[in-house]
This record gives sequence, C-alpha cells and structure tokens, in this order.
Amino acid sequence: MADARDIPVTPSEPPLRRGEGLAAWRQIADALAGEIGSGALPAGGQLPTEAALAKRFGVNRHTVRRALASLAERGLVRATQGRGTFVEQAPLAYPIGPRTRFSETVTRAGREAWGDLLGARVLAADAETAEALGLAPGAAVVEMLTRHRADDTPLSTARTSLPLPRFAAFDAAYARLGSITRAFGAFGVDDYTRLSTRVGARAASAEEAARLDIAPGRPLLTVTSVNVDGRGQRIQATQSLFSADRVELILE
Amino acid sequence: MADARDIPVTPSEPPLRRGEGLAAWRQIADALAGEIGSGALPAGGQLPTEAALAKRFGVNRHTVRRALASLAERGLVRATQGRGTFVEQAPLAYPIGPRTRFSETVTRAGREAWGDLLGARVLAADAETAEALGLAPGAAVVEMLTRHRADDTPLSTARTSLPLPRFAAFDAAYARLGSITRAFGAFGVDDYTRLSTRVGARAASAEEAARLDIAPGRPLLTVTSVNVDGRGQRIQATQSLFSADRVELILE
Repeated sequence: MADARDIPVTPSEPPLRRGEGLAAWRQIADALAGEIGSGALPAGGQLPTEAALAKRFGVNRHTVRRALASLAERGLVRATQGRGTFVEQAPLAYPIGPRTRFSETVTRAGREAWGDLLGARVLAADAETAEALGLAPGAAVVEMLTRHRADDTPLSTARTSLPLPRFAAFDAAYARLGSITRAFGAFGVDDYTRLSTRVGARAASAEEAARLDIAPGRPLLTVTSVNVDGRGQRIQATQSLFSADRVELILE
Repeated sequence: MADARDIPVTPSEPPLRRGEGLAAWRQIADALAGEIGSGALPAGGQLPTEAALAKRFGVNRHTVRRALASLAERGLVRATQGRGTFVEQAPLAYPIGPRTRFSETVTRAGREAWGDLLGARVLAADAETAEALGLAPGAAVVEMLTRHRADDTPLSTARTSLPLPRFAAFDAAYARLGSITRAFGAFGVDDYTRLSTRVGARAASAEEAARLDIAPGRPLLTVTSVNVDGRGQRIQATQSLFSADRVELILE
C-alpha cells in the first residue's frame, strides 16, 4: 500500500510542496493566479467555495481565506459579502468628456447600471465646494455619498454636492431613480455638461475599499468635476473614486 | 545635577518616548510629517541631513533612514541619490487634451522642463503598437524609454514608439533636444495633435519607482496616447507613467 502522504488530494491536483519554504497559502494563491491568467478561471466567473478549495488543496479554510485575500490584494479577484469570490473582469472603457453619463456608458457595455445612495446630509459648503459651485462660503448644499455599480460590481463611489434650495430633497429622488441624470430630470434639468475635470490617483483607504469591494491599498482614479445646466449654472460638484482595476478612462 | 535622561537633545526638541510601544523611527517620521503638514518644512524644501536628524533626535542614522523611508512610502518626501531628501510639492496641474505639450506645461508653471533619453532600440512592432500606429504587425519602429523632469524632479517616464524609416535616429534628436516637440520639429513635423488618450492607475514597480525617485508601490497615472501629424498620419504611440504624487491631470 502506498504511503498516504504520496496520494494527491484529487487525481488532477499536484500536492502542495510542504516544507520547501513557500507557505501553503502562497502556493494556492499562485496556482489560482495561474488559472486566472490562463483563462481556466474566466474573467467575471465565480471561484469555487472556500470549502471546495480547502478540500481540493487539502488545507483548512483559514489557509484558503489567506490565499484569496492575497489574490484580492493583487487585484485579481473580488470578494463580495456573502456571495462568494469572483475573478475581476477587464477594466471597463469609460469615456469621460463634456457629456459623460454613467448609466449610458455602463448600459452600452451590456451591463446594468445602478447608483446606490449610501448617505446624505444638508450642510454649509466648505471653501472648496463653495468655489466649485460659485456659492458664497457657508451656503447650504445637499451632499450625497453614492456607489455606482455595473450589474453587481461597484465601479466607483462619489461625494456630490448640489446647491440649495434648488435641489432640496435631491437625495430622495436619487435613491428612487438610481441615477444623477434621472434625478436631474425630476428637477427639470434635461441637459447638463462638464465644466471642468481633474484626474489623479491614490491608494484606497480601508473605508473606501469596503465601499468598492476591493482590497485596501488598491489603486483608485480620483475624478473631481463640476457640472453646469443648460444655462451655464453650476449645479453639481463631485469627487468620484473609480476602482482602477475595473475602469479605464477614455478621454474624449 | 539633573538625571541625563531628562535632558532633551536640543532645547526645543521633546525627547522620544522610549519604551512606550511606538518605535523610535515611527515617532521621528510622525514628527517630521507634522512639520511637513504645518509648513515648518516647506514644500520643495530640503530636509536636514541624516547626520543632523540623527543628532537632533538622539538616534543612529539607521533609525533616521527608516523614518525617511516611511515618509517616502507615504509620498511626503522624495529621496534623491546623493543629493538628499526633499519635501514633495503640491501636484502640478497638467492639462491633457488634443495639444498637450510637456515642455509648455512645465515652463508655464515656472519650472524648467527636460526629457532624458534612458534608452532606445529598433524593433518589430508588437500587435498593440502596430495597431496604434496603423502599421502592419511586425513593421519596424524606433522605441525610446524616457524620463521627464520639472527642474530636478521626475514627473513621468514613458515608452514611445515611432514608425520607421520616417523617424530613423529620432532618439539621437531627442537626446540632443530633450523634448518630443523639438525633436519632431527637427524632423519637419511642426504640429501634432492627440488622436486618443486612455487613463488608468496602478502601483509603481520597483524599477519604475527607481526611474521616478519615488517609493515602490506609490500610485502612478498611466496615460496611453496616439499622436498624429498635420495630415492625420499616426506618428507616435506612447505609454506615460506619471507620479500621481506629483501630477494631477486637468482634462481640457
């Protein structure tokens, strides 16, 4: 009878190399990264459950979890609360110009667009927001914290300020309609254009990462913009944070 | 006589809190970060030497070096080979549009612009480059690796491909003139415009970081672009990597 240690966990799976200096979680992460690279685990597809991976590699779930966390830190997979782990898709080409519309861009890519209202408050505009909106410092604005999804994948999160009293209860319209464009429509703004856009990059904080289902420290594109209505009135100042793993900006 | 341990290193310097769980290098980094934040150490200014900091904080130079490395990892300072450590400046506003010119942008900001040729070779275009330049796959191109500085601070590094035989020895012209615009001028191209631009973000590799005098892992803006001459001929395909600590893109 063969020594039990020589029998691989599954007929197709080479056993982990124990005691050779490379931790088991790292070997598992490398094996899965290889399968993502080769397309054996396709972009957008769901990984096997932690339990299934633990069985396949002959390790406990803690080790599997560490391997999956390392893949998330490398931007290769996305872990979602309670729904499992998915292979990241190729970045969405996101045209950005005078008439950028999140919903149109995502819908054109064959995916369903939705914006979640995460929070809202009325406050006195700080100096930067007041200047962006052409208001006196301290003027009242409504500020919304939102998250923008393509299907179930968060692409961006944003902090948006709009002047009051014109846009009173804008947050309620946004929560109902899931789109800035549609919420503006409900307020009689049928067209709007970008006045200015600044783009930077930085690493995601723990809180931003949690909002976007990415690992802390993954790269973000920061997009700071001001929109005006058809008569040139400044109606919206926004700082958007795009996951750079999921979005590439196309300048128009 | 007072206990020697109670005497601060300099009259104005509170002693490090020994044995309270926060490593000396971290206390030093926090103290210097505070001085950068308050402007006591001004943007663009040079930090005291390692020897001076070691004396000021009553530690060895190894501890000072660790503190400075941690400030570089946070994007607060820039260490240059042999010339010391400098406080990072506010990001340069870099307009990006159909007629982006590195030299003009940097000069307008009151800084001196120069491009260094780091390497060049003639090779067969890969599929992506051939498509960008409208060439048959495998057509010959000259590829340059460059670094772009404002005064002594690297802002970006780029890999640029140009079609042959039209731009034979373009690298020699670039090395001499320090600017794509001037090198194009030497080849009779008096005007060029951007056909397309894509913007992403990712962390710097060790090699890219060394080229830019930043810490590995700091955020980069990746700008992929194609330029055409006055007759619409594709003359340049470039991938630029901008230090996001030093540059913010302004969309035009």
